Amino acid sequence: METASDILVKKYGGTSVGSIERIESLADRLAKEIRAGQKPIIVVSAMSGETNRLIAMAEKIDPDHRGAAYDMLIASGEQVSIALLAIALQKRGIKAQPLLAYQLGIRTDATASKARIHSIDVEPLLHLVAQDIVPVVAGFQGVDDEKNITTLGRGGSDTTAVALAAALAAHAGSSSQTCEIYTDVPAVFTADPRLVSRAREIPSLSCEEMMEMAALGSKVLHIRCVEIAAKYRVKIHLRSTFEEREGTWILPEELGEMKPMNGKNVNSKFEPKVNIKIEQPVVSAVTHDANTAVFNLFPVPRGSTFLAELFDNLAKRGVVVDIITQSESADGQRLSFSVTKEDIPLSRLALKEFMADPAHVTLIENMAKISVVGVGMRNHPGVAARFFAVLARKNVPIQIVTTSEIKISAVIDQSRIKEAAEALHSEFGLDANDAS
Amino acid sequence: METASDILVKKYGGTSVGSIERIESLADRLAKEIRAGQKPIIVVSAMSGETNRLIAMAEKIDPDHRGAAYDMLIASGEQVSIALLAIALQKRGIKAQPLLAYQLGIRTDATASKARIHSIDVEPLLHLVAQDIVPVVAGFQGVDDEKNITTLGRGGSDTTAVALAAALAAHAGSSSQTCEIYTDVPAVFTADPRLVSRAREIPSLSCEEMMEMAALGSKVLHIRCVEIAAKYRVKIHLRSTFEEREGTWILPEELGEMKPMNGKNVNSKFEPKVNIKIEQPVVSAVTHDANTAVFNLFPVPRGSTFLAELFDNLAKRGVVVDIITQSESADGQRLSFSVTKEDIPLSRLALKEFMADPAHVTLIENMAKISVVGVGMRNHPGVAARFFAVLARKNVPIQIVTTSEIKISAVIDQSRIKEAAEALHSEFGLDANDAS
Repeated sequence: METASDILVKKYGGTSVGSIERIESLADRLAKEIRAGQKPIIVVSAMSGETNRLIAMAEKIDPDHRGAAYDMLIASGEQVSIALLAIALQKRGIKAQPLLAYQLGIRTDATASKARIHSIDVEPLLHLVAQDIVPVVAGFQGVDDEKNITTLGRGGSDTTAVALAAALAAHAGSSSQTCEIYTDVPAVFTADPRLVSRAREIPSLSCEEMMEMAALGSKVLHIRCVEIAAKYRVKIHLRSTFEEREGTWILPEELGEMKPMNGKNVNSKFEPKVNIKIEQPVVSAVTHDANTAVFNLFPVPRGSTFLAELFDNLAKRGVVVDIITQSESADGQRLSFSVTKEDIPLSRLALKEFMADPAHVTLIENMAKISVVGVGMRNHPGVAARFFAVLARKNVPIQIVTTSEIKISAVIDQSRIKEAAEALHSEFGLDANDAS
Repeated sequence: METASDILVKKYGGTSVGSIERIESLADRLAKEIRAGQKPIIVVSAMSGETNRLIAMAEKIDPDHRGAAYDMLIASGEQVSIALLAIALQKRGIKAQPLLAYQLGIRTDATASKARIHSIDVEPLLHLVAQDIVPVVAGFQGVDDEKNITTLGRGGSDTTAVALAAALAAHAGSSSQTCEIYTDVPAVFTADPRLVSRAREIPSLSCEEMMEMAALGSKVLHIRCVEIAAKYRVKIHLRSTFEEREGTWILPEELGEMKPMNGKNVNSKFEPKVNIKIEQPVVSAVTHDANTAVFNLFPVPRGSTFLAELFDNLAKRGVVVDIITQSESADGQRLSFSVTKEDIPLSRLALKEFMADPAHVTLIENMAKISVVGVGMRNHPGVAARFFAVLARKNVPIQIVTTSEIKISAVIDQSRIKEAAEALHSEFGLDANDAS
């Protein structure tokens, strides 16, 4: 039987399987690698556009619906793509088996649309690999204790892949497992290249930085997948489906010192760059999230339990509140919090229960969050001051602000986002023609 | 806890859920019935066109592919439709839960694309109904012993519905259970009304007649669903999704004598017509199947095991051979058999192994089977003579012929089918303005 460390988890996003033609060319590439000796476990997203098509149908019936039926609906997208990829591999003489979450025992909690993985049984996978059968696993989905299908939320297929790699590493008692995430971008960039023309590729990043970037709107990787990678020391190699070259390595911090691997896996010519240094740039990347809305509550009802109860209610509805700011003035308490656009309807339902007077609630839509991230910020005071100075110079009003040890974020108007990103990218020396 | 006999199995075909608008209006109607006290178990097909869309994608990759991946692919259509209908019911305040085959334990054998149901566990369904939760069950699919998704072949959702009704009856130890099958036609007709303008609705039929009609190309009900109905004495009420009135009752023969039921179920104002009589018309219906192809083999290799081995090989590939005729002449043995158009590629593969010289195999495509069916034929000799006389009068050449106790079929050219059907319909007194 193969040991888990011989196995490479490879995840392909929606654009990689976005049409029959793309599925065929992916199958060509995989068949070549498998014939060359690679033992992959393949994780696949839904064909691009498919999840949105399914969501649109559900929303036509009931815009606010979330629950088991909704999750069953949108999980069907991955069922289609893994079946098609398995058929394409079989056509090429590769034994391949498509696998759904219930078959693999990808167990999650029962939170609809944002479930968290509890456990994965890797034995069936190892059993298939031992018989030279390539498992093609449906990303994004799990099953709860009642055997209902759950889904893992945005970027859920990345989470499936990294969780699988983590489970394989744990099973093998190995120090580390690589998970390749193939996508339509070749690497992680210092900023979104569509927004900031001088954005550059980042060869390697710490999980911590990547988590902040994900939390701050970088669409490249989902924050939960990086959390799992950090916790279980999975090395993520993010790279392009359409180019052969290396992309960005996202490494658990302690792996910065790691020796190159023994090269057993065809694609893991792994020479990690030591990326946690004093010479590290102060800021590694500028990120943004255009999908933000802010609720302002004023005046907030008196009572010590109000905030706790409100945010508990929001959490129970599955609303992820991002930034929270609160201030006290002579005329009353003021509360602002930001959520993603998708969570506006559920947030409104919660607020209806807590704010008797609707006039005391203001929703500001079409906002965006702009952030700078970098582990180097730990050792460099004054980054916040430079951040605010840049926005002030550009006359960009800030709605709310939040900071952590390695990032600063501001919610600003969506229309100002490009201007702000370009200015911050220059200010912190990230532009492509700057010394790096 | 509800007893099974309070429960009505209701199956809705692809056109009933063919768009979001139709799903909404179906949900309106169901919600009304449920509020009036009905306790349904709902079985749903894929949205019309969806299964064909999925098949087209698979065939683009590999036209000959059949297997677990293919079944997983096409089973996703029902996953979508049950989820959407459940969402629509929930929107209307009805507690509804979509259920896939693996959740219900609809166990089948492992024959890809044509699996047969072994068992259904009705306990989870009864448990839901007892909590006033309406089960919305995916038709067409099952799971094999390895937990792989299987599909039941054409008309598989009807089979799911009738098998569920049979399992409920067995569980309750009740003498009989009704299964309503809602479709886009209002009833079973004496012939396809698109082909024969004077075709009439049939108020009730025996299972035996319906089985012959299904075997002979009537698309209204799948033969296996009627087999199960006959075996487990399930009463099928075939009716229109879009009209309120009764359609056609398909009744196990011994139920011809049954007393009307106690009317517990809202929709079962059941007064079966005694339909097995001497006064029965000789022929009940004219059916056709335009989807036929004929292989002619000449000369057939000598050897007593040839036929057995050939048809065994075809069966193992999942090819359903319909009519077989064989004749001996001075220059050799001649064999003809008919299959559906879909099974042509698999039949060719089998023939390649058995017929060394491809020139000895002729495929005749674009054929159709025309048949007359009626339990009355048992008591009336000479039906075959009249059947052949009609076709001869019309100069319709017959490729192959088969007869049974209650039917006669001939394979003729597709282009002659309308003419032949009209003539036979008149000949046997089925036209709408004839006395009935």
